[in-house]
Amino acid sequence: MPINESDIKTPLLNTIDSPADLRRLEQQQLPELCAEIRQFLINALSVNPGHFASSMGAVELTVALHYVFNTPYDRIVWDVGHQAYAHKILTGRREAFANNRKLGGLSGFPNPDESPYDTFAAGHASNSISAALGMAVASKLNGDSPRRNVVAVIGDASISGGLAFEGINNAANTPNNLLIILNDNDMSIDRNVGSLNSYLAHITTSKTYNDLRYKAFRALAKFGMISDKSRGSIMRFNNSIKSLVAHQQNIFEGLNIRYFGPFDGHDISAIIRVLNDIRDMEGPRILHLRTVKGKGYAPAEKDPAHWHAPGKFDPATGQRSETQTAEGKPIKFQDVFGNTLLELARENKDIVAITAAMLSGTSTSTMQKEIPERVFDVGISEGHAVTFAGGLAKEGKQPFVAIYSSFLQRGYDHMIHDVALNRRRVTFCIDRAGLVGEDGPTHHGAFDLAYLRSIPGMTIAAPRDEHMLRHLMYTAQSVDCGPMAIRYPRGRGFIPNWQCAMCQLPIGKGERLTEGRDVAVVTIGTTAHAAAEAVARAAAEGISAAHYDIIFLKPLDTEMLSEIASRGMDIITVEDGTVNGGLGSAVAEWLEDSRHSDIRLTRLGLPDKFISQGTPAQLAAICGIDADSIYRTIKESIEMKARTKTDML
Amino acid sequence: MPINESDIKTPLLNTIDSPADLRRLEQQQLPELCAEIRQFLINALSVNPGHFASSMGAVELTVALHYVFNTPYDRIVWDVGHQAYAHKILTGRREAFANNRKLGGLSGFPNPDESPYDTFAAGHASNSISAALGMAVASKLNGDSPRRNVVAVIGDASISGGLAFEGINNAANTPNNLLIILNDNDMSIDRNVGSLNSYLAHITTSKTYNDLRYKAFRALAKFGMISDKSRGSIMRFNNSIKSLVAHQQNIFEGLNIRYFGPFDGHDISAIIRVLNDIRDMEGPRILHLRTVKGKGYAPAEKDPAHWHAPGKFDPATGQRSETQTAEGKPIKFQDVFGNTLLELARENKDIVAITAAMLSGTSTSTMQKEIPERVFDVGISEGHAVTFAGGLAKEGKQPFVAIYSSFLQRGYDHMIHDVALNRRRVTFCIDRAGLVGEDGPTHHGAFDLAYLRSIPGMTIAAPRDEHMLRHLMYTAQSVDCGPMAIRYPRGRGFIPNWQCAMCQLPIGKGERLTEGRDVAVVTIGTTAHAAAEAVARAAAEGISAAHYDIIFLKPLDTEMLSEIASRGMDIITVEDGTVNGGLGSAVAEWLEDSRHSDIRLTRLGLPDKFISQGTPAQLAAICGIDADSIYRTIKESIEMKARTKTDML
Repeated sequence: MPINESDIKTPLLNTIDSPADLRRLEQQQLPELCAEIRQFLINALSVNPGHFASSMGAVELTVALHYVFNTPYDRIVWDVGHQAYAHKILTGRREAFANNRKLGGLSGFPNPDESPYDTFAAGHASNSISAALGMAVASKLNGDSPRRNVVAVIGDASISGGLAFEGINNAANTPNNLLIILNDNDMSIDRNVGSLNSYLAHITTSKTYNDLRYKAFRALAKFGMISDKSRGSIMRFNNSIKSLVAHQQNIFEGLNIRYFGPFDGHDISAIIRVLNDIRDMEGPRILHLRTVKGKGYAPAEKDPAHWHAPGKFDPATGQRSETQTAEGKPIKFQDVFGNTLLELARENKDIVAITAAMLSGTSTSTMQKEIPERVFDVGISEGHAVTFAGGLAKEGKQPFVAIYSSFLQRGYDHMIHDVALNRRRVTFCIDRAGLVGEDGPTHHGAFDLAYLRSIPGMTIAAPRDEHMLRHLMYTAQSVDCGPMAIRYPRGRGFIPNWQCAMCQLPIGKGERLTEGRDVAVVTIGTTAHAAAEAVARAAAEGISAAHYDIIFLKPLDTEMLSEIASRGMDIITVEDGTVNGGLGSAVAEWLEDSRHSDIRLTRLGLPDKFISQGTPAQLAAICGIDADSIYRTIKESIEMKARTKTDML
Repeated sequence: MPINESDIKTPLLNTIDSPADLRRLEQQQLPELCAEIRQFLINALSVNPGHFASSMGAVELTVALHYVFNTPYDRIVWDVGHQAYAHKILTGRREAFANNRKLGGLSGFPNPDESPYDTFAAGHASNSISAALGMAVASKLNGDSPRRNVVAVIGDASISGGLAFEGINNAANTPNNLLIILNDNDMSIDRNVGSLNSYLAHITTSKTYNDLRYKAFRALAKFGMISDKSRGSIMRFNNSIKSLVAHQQNIFEGLNIRYFGPFDGHDISAIIRVLNDIRDMEGPRILHLRTVKGKGYAPAEKDPAHWHAPGKFDPATGQRSETQTAEGKPIKFQDVFGNTLLELARENKDIVAITAAMLSGTSTSTMQKEIPERVFDVGISEGHAVTFAGGLAKEGKQPFVAIYSSFLQRGYDHMIHDVALNRRRVTFCIDRAGLVGEDGPTHHGAFDLAYLRSIPGMTIAAPRDEHMLRHLMYTAQSVDCGPMAIRYPRGRGFIPNWQCAMCQLPIGKGERLTEGRDVAVVTIGTTAHAAAEAVARAAAEGISAAHYDIIFLKPLDTEMLSEIASRGMDIITVEDGTVNGGLGSAVAEWLEDSRHSDIRLTRLGLPDKFISQGTPAQLAAICGIDADSIYRTIKESIEMKARTKTDML
């Protein structure tokens, strides 16, 4: 292995090629190792951006877990994997980490296809307890010997999601030895919300009781008084201590899960001690650790929300590239949404906004700063966000619900049952639609066009640029057409000056962008830009390709399609969503239903598989929806038509 | 109004045409009214079946709510509306109740399109708190004067769903006066499960504390010592009482919701007293009532699970028609599933079964009786059920997840993220797929084919009869093709002798059922039977219609389709799911993708709207997927083809 500067900085870490290496270290070496891991993370992420603050806060926890547990035989299930970088580094992926989140490189989240240490997918929050419970119950059924421990590591934001509660509610139902570690940094990606989180914050007030209980437990164990570590005796132990101190019952204990904590999540000796103490206990347990997001890097500790995923930065100064001026560049779609929402809400008192733990991520924060009483951050609870919006709409409010496309999958039933069924006027502003790039398969908004289209009465639109996003939002607040979805991509837009007067768009009407006669390219949303480029290239070669932006997937602009068909043009549809059920499918259905057997359709879109991480440009090329692919398809279409004509002659 | 026997039996009830009439009664008349409502329900439901036991248990609660609150100005939000029959009867729908659950009659669930007293759709569990919170928050924002009260009524099974927890977790975040009434009958549709439910059952142990607290509250209020009913003073009051009795803190109070209870939910005076006491309080509150499912009808009290929806019965004896012998009749699909599951599980130790509060409803109970340690009823938590299955599959188990089609919508994201992404071998046995009949729009399994098809790597199959269901289940346990969905309808099958030797079916291979040359009918699932009838009728008229059962929606049998196309037959697809994204869409896509411009496609399926209640036969006719409709479509197709040929001559 070549010696370079970073090797010198992290001599201990460089000896760790697997957790087995880690377990050979002396316990007193671990603080040094933790410091090196932090240095490694700072160096690596300053040049190859990723999720920073969460992983920095979980360093001691990660080291302790692999030190105490026999991974990968024992299972660690990470919740929302962006806390798992130290885990990746310690499990044989130190060098590969330079390619974290890159095409062909490491996934930015735990990925079972990547490593046996990554036991479960972890891009959507709150799934770790249910998944780990399944694994723990399976291990009991399998009679694994030696006992296989299963540990779910979940943040305080994730544990407030309904799925996590369902997991907790079921954890005591069935024999299992699940250990839940609550990594509590009192942070969502933004500030934290919800009663459970206030509750967790105030558990400190019961520290005396918890300390006493834990010390008593250790003493009794030491003297062999808890030799039988069975569920019953532990429970009796808990109850007697409880009656001793006459203290309030803990929520988790109310739900039949033994609770230990809170402990300092950066005191590695303390963590290792308590993990050793409770490792072999029977039954579900929860260990509550207090950590600091961004721990060990002052700029991140000070402003953990911005350092959640800071982009590139200067390790020495903490200067983030992203904060540097981007003058003249278009702003992000999410900011156009945020600014426009505020603009509309200033005039329309009925507008309320809802986000699920993504105040900054969706830029709902813009409205929140000025009109906080009409902005609701409901935390990680997409289902509740949608149903809550349904209730608000029932009483005449006009909710704008801003949720990322792939996370809104959690609200599918709620959109059907609590919004669409009674035609509630709720506007879904679906951010991160289409290919999101580096976050990979768990985060691509690949399915929204398909799943939304199945919902009766749902109006579905996608703006091709920032101005149209504004027009669509304005339209949603001006016309009551029941539920409406507006989906737009991650990242920057296309127009340096996003501001414009807003106007009402006709629902279900597309727009012809380029006149043509040989073939018609029909796009939705921002795929219009790649298509425009392709059309221009084709035009330079004398091919007259028309370009239509359908704007609305539903209701489908059948008039526009009829116009295209009446002119005998074959159609190429382009969408940044799955080909199973989106725009191409809608046009195929229409062509069949309306008996347009003379028109050929070519459907470009995301293939029917999970798309890996990579840059959006790389992925668009792989999926065949970039300008090159569209251009080639135009050419093929023309050639095919020419051949058909020749055949017919 | 004509006087008939039932009028005589319910003289008081007959004077109530709206809650305003109810509120004119003296309080001491209410027990008599409750008795009459019960008599009315027994009479009505004995001849026109519906949900019995839940509504019987909620009679006093319902009367008290409409007596104390100013409905419909005040809002009652029912969770899972099958407890809401008394509510329907008291809100101007007494006579219409004879047509409950019938086509053109009353919906079996609260339906805002039916009555202003029905504030929100309530077919899927656990949504009431989120919806009511939205309404309560809106009312605050709207500055409604007089104050508008919003009451969510939720059962103890529903409150353990993740969505309800998300609602509770957010209830204290925002100014609102939400009142949650926990109607606790210690029952799911089956037995109850989960830690929260054990917890609720044991709250009784703290009755002394709760009584003391409530009495102290009343006394203080009486003497004007709680004149300012603001949140702060109430909280301080709660805390001081708490320190007085040094009692454990309640989970709800831990989540910042004031708790009152448990009270006897059949003592109408007590309920009215406590409702009056807490009605005008500020902030979210929960009132815990203990009720008995089936209350007031001995057979139902004894066996509430079977009396959840008993079918027709003899009011005098409690003899249910359903329990009478059905010799020679085919059994239900769910029972074929249940029996087959047990059969497979006996041989294959890795098979485990998961259901979400529907042990009997899905007949997973059959396996549970013999192999309880491998059957998991996770309660109302479809998301958890799916993710839990993903965890079990990760450790080599073969989970069969039995969930109703429309409820599985709650698990859409979990199927994508926690199962399909890593190709976990989970078999989804999707009951109640297609039109379910009397339960109406919230319960029709209309969307599964579409939403499942969007998921990469999901194998999707639908058996046309009981034998094929067995073969498909056998195939799922024999071949690892990753996640697999098998969807089948509500109700009885087609074959008197469902038992048969099981065999492995080739994945993605359809079957030709009838040879033909004029047109090809392609069906999926049990739509094969209507199609077979239509094909036979057409044959009698000399039309040679071929009939293919595609069996698998995904992977699509393109070889079979190619064979059809190569013979120049137009295609009619038939499915009992939405036309937006299911079989017809898949075939349309294939025809376009494979350039079969010579083949015409006609897609029969559920229209793109919500389908009301009615008998399955009525609804199939309305949707155009019954034998008549298929027959007509065959004829039209032939005529069209003839015309086209004539045109071409």
